[in-house]
Amino acid sequence: MTEIYLNLIESALGSITERNDPEVLGQAAADCERIVKKTGVYSRPVVADDEYTSDLALRATKKLLQQNSTNADEYDALIVCTQTPDHLIPGVSSLVHGKLGFAQNCYTMDINQGCSGFVYGTHLIGAMIRGGASQQAILVNADCYTRLIRSDDLTTRVLFGDAATATSFSTKRAGFQLLYSRCYADGTGYEDFIARGSAIQPDENIGPGIHMNGPSILSFALRVVPDAVNDALKDNNLESNDIRMFAFHQANSFVIDKLAYKMKLRGAQVPQNCANLGNTVSASIPLLLLEQRNNLSCGDLVLTTGFGVGLSWGVALLEYVGND
Amino acid sequence: MTEIYLNLIESALGSITERNDPEVLGQAAADCERIVKKTGVYSRPVVADDEYTSDLALRATKKLLQQNSTNADEYDALIVCTQTPDHLIPGVSSLVHGKLGFAQNCYTMDINQGCSGFVYGTHLIGAMIRGGASQQAILVNADCYTRLIRSDDLTTRVLFGDAATATSFSTKRAGFQLLYSRCYADGTGYEDFIARGSAIQPDENIGPGIHMNGPSILSFALRVVPDAVNDALKDNNLESNDIRMFAFHQANSFVIDKLAYKMKLRGAQVPQNCANLGNTVSASIPLLLLEQRNNLSCGDLVLTTGFGVGLSWGVALLEYVGND
Repeated sequence: MTEIYLNLIESALGSITERNDPEVLGQAAADCERIVKKTGVYSRPVVADDEYTSDLALRATKKLLQQNSTNADEYDALIVCTQTPDHLIPGVSSLVHGKLGFAQNCYTMDINQGCSGFVYGTHLIGAMIRGGASQQAILVNADCYTRLIRSDDLTTRVLFGDAATATSFSTKRAGFQLLYSRCYADGTGYEDFIARGSAIQPDENIGPGIHMNGPSILSFALRVVPDAVNDALKDNNLESNDIRMFAFHQANSFVIDKLAYKMKLRGAQVPQNCANLGNTVSASIPLLLLEQRNNLSCGDLVLTTGFGVGLSWGVALLEYVGND
Repeated sequence: MTEIYLNLIESALGSITERNDPEVLGQAAADCERIVKKTGVYSRPVVADDEYTSDLALRATKKLLQQNSTNADEYDALIVCTQTPDHLIPGVSSLVHGKLGFAQNCYTMDINQGCSGFVYGTHLIGAMIRGGASQQAILVNADCYTRLIRSDDLTTRVLFGDAATATSFSTKRAGFQLLYSRCYADGTGYEDFIARGSAIQPDENIGPGIHMNGPSILSFALRVVPDAVNDALKDNNLESNDIRMFAFHQANSFVIDKLAYKMKLRGAQVPQNCANLGNTVSASIPLLLLEQRNNLSCGDLVLTTGFGVGLSWGVALLEYVGND
């Protein structure tokens, strides 16, 4: 079996920091405190007026190329995962391809996934490398959900941050080895998290922008995530204590705490970074891996779990192998 | 090497037929005649007011499942290629997944590609099957570009039709065997075909909707397509006479005739179907394969070539193996 590695991760954040405080949200101080306490989100990066998904994707990819000491033309696949492209036609990946000088034989495409997009993308690139369709690939996870947030919808506004990550994949042993991945979907929850009036279908007077059925999404996450994690452990003959780190999608602290409690995980196994990032959609897991890398030792197992819009979810088991 | 087959193709068209005639286009009869003569497009299927990409995708997929005598839950991958999703969040694939009862372990995702989307999707699913990520997959190609056409922009309006196809893939010997595929990109042409004001980035007063730089796109196609075709022939030790059918993306007759002339292909090798379909974006090649299947004999080679927005292009070599 071909060994596949996530060699390096780089990131870019929306250039404005929005705080969840009374001035910004237009709410009483007590209400803001309650919100911050429940979600664990104090502030979030958001895009500036003239900043779009492609700007975040470009910055993250450029940093990755510099950090990796590679030229763009060494990659044969460039996959951008986004649900907030600059334009419907063409994809953000085309813009990144052109601006950074990727090669003509580089498979260049956007994929549409939300909070499970890092796992979905990792699974896809893993299959492409194993299937002989790529040797060296980049996965970009980039979104600016705040462009679609209704400013009066406090339940979503206080949660989402705008960010991008770029992750390089190859068969060269460095970073994280991809040991296993599995993806799931349940389209009967299509309307549980939906951006109305956002593409071709006009809004039907419900109000354009993101609509989240919070209770549905929460009960979905608490139902499917433990099962997917348990199946992943079982499929790999592991117990939860064997996992050094559960890198959950950083939806918000409320959800992550509940998941950890339900699965009886130790606090040290479940790092969080949503306090000053919020929910950065498909970039949240690679942002966490990037942050936590220095706390890992060779051989440590990391179980990443994405879940959200679609509905869709997925699990990828990684082993940290160090950087040489 | 795992053998991969495109087993069956089904389709769905926009439910209204729009003719390129004086009444519809608001042009003088002589102008309309000139347009029809140059493009070869007499009429096009377009979506009704309450019809969206998901409706076309659902109809095509439903027909495929019926025709294939398979249940939705037998598929482990459902990829919808579209640039005109109903919503940015979630993808059309989620809706199809939920409405038709696909299984929870089905990898479900939209990909964003235009006129090279059938080849890009075929290449991807080929890699997924070879890489062990799928055994039985469906690729849906669905778009309603007419939703983004500026009604006063005659150069694009007379060309595009709305349609969907659904193609099933597996390792079971039936339909077309996928012998070879290769995909290309050149993002420096990002603005040559762009839908302004269509997603997150507002239109900068140029006018929302599709903008096509016709001369650029034409010279791009005449430059890259013959090279990609020649490389595919060379990579497979073939000459153009060995190919029974060149299934070019049905951009319009003007482009296809020019390509055929430049590559010295015989008319019988280059079937066209744009007269009453127009340019149906990534559905155009599978629509042509579906139509022409009865003219093929076992062992016939078909070279499919997609090219367009991105810019991107690709070639897939198929062998017709019959339906048993």
